[in-house]
Amino acid sequence: MTITDQLIKFAGVTPPKDALTMMRLSLFDWAACGIAGAREPDFADFVAGQLARGQGPATVIGGTSAPATTAALINGTLSHALDYDDTHFAHIGHPSVAVIPAVLALAEEVDAPLEEVIEAATIGVEASILTGIWLGRAHYQVGYHQTATAGAFGAALGSARLLGLEPDEIRNALGLCASMASGLKAQFGTMGKPLNAGLAARTGVEATLWAQSGMTAAHDGLAGPLGFGPTHHGQEEEVKPGKGDWHITSISHKFHACCHGLHAMLEAFGEARFCPDDVASIHIRTHPRWMSVCNIAEPTTGLAAKFSYAQTAAMTLLGHDTGAIASFIDAICVDVDVLAMREKIKISEDERLTETQVEISVKMDNGGLRRFRHDLLEPMSLEQRSEKLKSKGAAVLGDTRADTLWQVAQGDTLRDLTDQLLIS
Amino acid sequence: MTITDQLIKFAGVTPPKDALTMMRLSLFDWAACGIAGAREPDFADFVAGQLARGQGPATVIGGTSAPATTAALINGTLSHALDYDDTHFAHIGHPSVAVIPAVLALAEEVDAPLEEVIEAATIGVEASILTGIWLGRAHYQVGYHQTATAGAFGAALGSARLLGLEPDEIRNALGLCASMASGLKAQFGTMGKPLNAGLAARTGVEATLWAQSGMTAAHDGLAGPLGFGPTHHGQEEEVKPGKGDWHITSISHKFHACCHGLHAMLEAFGEARFCPDDVASIHIRTHPRWMSVCNIAEPTTGLAAKFSYAQTAAMTLLGHDTGAIASFIDAICVDVDVLAMREKIKISEDERLTETQVEISVKMDNGGLRRFRHDLLEPMSLEQRSEKLKSKGAAVLGDTRADTLWQVAQGDTLRDLTDQLLIS
Repeated sequence: MTITDQLIKFAGVTPPKDALTMMRLSLFDWAACGIAGAREPDFADFVAGQLARGQGPATVIGGTSAPATTAALINGTLSHALDYDDTHFAHIGHPSVAVIPAVLALAEEVDAPLEEVIEAATIGVEASILTGIWLGRAHYQVGYHQTATAGAFGAALGSARLLGLEPDEIRNALGLCASMASGLKAQFGTMGKPLNAGLAARTGVEATLWAQSGMTAAHDGLAGPLGFGPTHHGQEEEVKPGKGDWHITSISHKFHACCHGLHAMLEAFGEARFCPDDVASIHIRTHPRWMSVCNIAEPTTGLAAKFSYAQTAAMTLLGHDTGAIASFIDAICVDVDVLAMREKIKISEDERLTETQVEISVKMDNGGLRRFRHDLLEPMSLEQRSEKLKSKGAAVLGDTRADTLWQVAQGDTLRDLTDQLLIS
Repeated sequence: MTITDQLIKFAGVTPPKDALTMMRLSLFDWAACGIAGAREPDFADFVAGQLARGQGPATVIGGTSAPATTAALINGTLSHALDYDDTHFAHIGHPSVAVIPAVLALAEEVDAPLEEVIEAATIGVEASILTGIWLGRAHYQVGYHQTATAGAFGAALGSARLLGLEPDEIRNALGLCASMASGLKAQFGTMGKPLNAGLAARTGVEATLWAQSGMTAAHDGLAGPLGFGPTHHGQEEEVKPGKGDWHITSISHKFHACCHGLHAMLEAFGEARFCPDDVASIHIRTHPRWMSVCNIAEPTTGLAAKFSYAQTAAMTLLGHDTGAIASFIDAICVDVDVLAMREKIKISEDERLTETQVEISVKMDNGGLRRFRHDLLEPMSLEQRSEKLKSKGAAVLGDTRADTLWQVAQGDTLRDLTDQLLIS
């Protein structure tokens, strides 16, 4: 059975409860990232240009409505604009930003209950991770952005589930996706990166709607001759849809508004209890991969601060909330206390550590030595994850707004959720 | 200077007269293919679904108008629906169906004169061929559809020329294109093939408009690290934009409504003069590549007839117009005279021949032997090409309609051309 046949069958599976619960958390997290992302001025002209093309039934985050394809494109882009959304490390991709905008936009067209949206999004997110695992590390390493490529197939399968497509129609939707899914890591550091997520969401919607309208496509667009895998450096790794724990249950959420390479360190400091005034020096050891990614020694802008071990370490030690987007401003890079703390911090690479691990040694003024370590893959209880996500939401949107958003994301009514997305 | 820098510079070049003249011929040919393609019922639901999303200033072939992005998508798809449009063998792609719909749709938004449309389309078509040559045979062989991939970059550069983008904006447009250009040969034989052309046209329009609205992207999306070439099996062949004869001047037009592998044979028979009643047997020798592509021995449908040496040879010998779409009906496969002629024809592969060559031996009833050969790459005078294109147009649209279309394609007024496209 090829991956195409596996995904067609998987579209009809009932997700387990823990997968659905995690999807509810990711929906809340995605919505918070999207509402915050829509406040950024960078994409305003792009959004206005899309909205000028016509109205429709699907909510566009931050204030209006459009056809489902347009809403998926805009919402996917805006919710990834801050790079603060969820990640899965099995394939290295951001699943929610591709899948949720697609499923949500179509759900508004057919007026589906929120429960069905959650089910379809769960199928879609899991399908994107499975497709990403099937494509493998070679696909990612050569330059493809899994968020966009695997994401488009996940968005299509989630959309197909929501609209109840027949198996032959799903086959054509995946076949069309094989010609449309695209997106390069070459865009990192530009507006093209969030756009990749929006394009994946739109591709999912379009491939599904076009297949439903009778368009035909490659019989096995993923694994067949000249298919997406063979052409896109796919490794055709084995996957087992629906068997064992679902991958979505090991999704990672960001709790700091900066590069994911800094998160293990920030979590380690979060668990530590000592007074910053008593610190003599700090030594942080991390995986070599991150040295070229997020080790800017002396950042001078809020954006550069998001890619600096020393800067973010100093910020969190001095009580600045690294979960709040507003903390990352240019002024924080010239704060005298932060600068003084930065001076005490040394970073070095350590090949013993994995990409998700960090080790920290803190020498105190009194000569004492404290050691901390953290691994992002350590299991987190549902309660702990919920609390951390609520805190993140509050840091991003304020307490009241985050509380309301939490309620509607746990509720039954799609309209209650989309009404929240409309408020900028 | 990388291909990206070369293309940015090339966007400002003034095309030579013979390139512009060829573009006028391709515009006529493209319009005839598009009008005929819009009459096919296959894509009706797809088109209706797109048009439901909103109106706009750009003409949609066959009857209405839409935003430029929608018009580019539909017109690119419809004009490739019959697979009767022009080809360039240097990279193996159909340039007009990706470039013309993009440039034309934007031209209507800004109300440009037809002369500027021709210039921009010439730049775009040449850029698509150059990009295709730069990507090389490896890119095509592994499974990418050059019509769609190289075509998207050509559509973007033609659009950028028409709208007068600044160099930095063109850089971003090509960078966005690197994340959006896609399309697989796996779609051949399905509706996904013409759709690939439409998607390329839309990508060109969107990448250009988004870059113009300030969106940033990879600095060198084609040749840079993790760029389109390195990720998509590109060979980075040397190209010289604007130097020597332009590639567009050696474009191939189809004069028969069937597989391009049959065209050398049909041209050879077209030059031959003998009475079919006096034929004892016919032996056709062709390149081995075509044996698996268009050598159906006993076709039973009009579609299958388009992929049969014996069937189309019998048809042309007996006076059926292989330039007319209407000739390829199921009934022609059970015509007793055609069947009798088919019986006399033998096909064999011959490695001495190139993909564009054919050799034919005809034994007459009186024992005489006649030999014919043809090479599709033989030069054709402008007058001869014009006459053959007019005949093709007449076979597809009727004499009067084709004559009017010819006049407006040679004229100065964009509106006169688009008015013709509106009539179904």
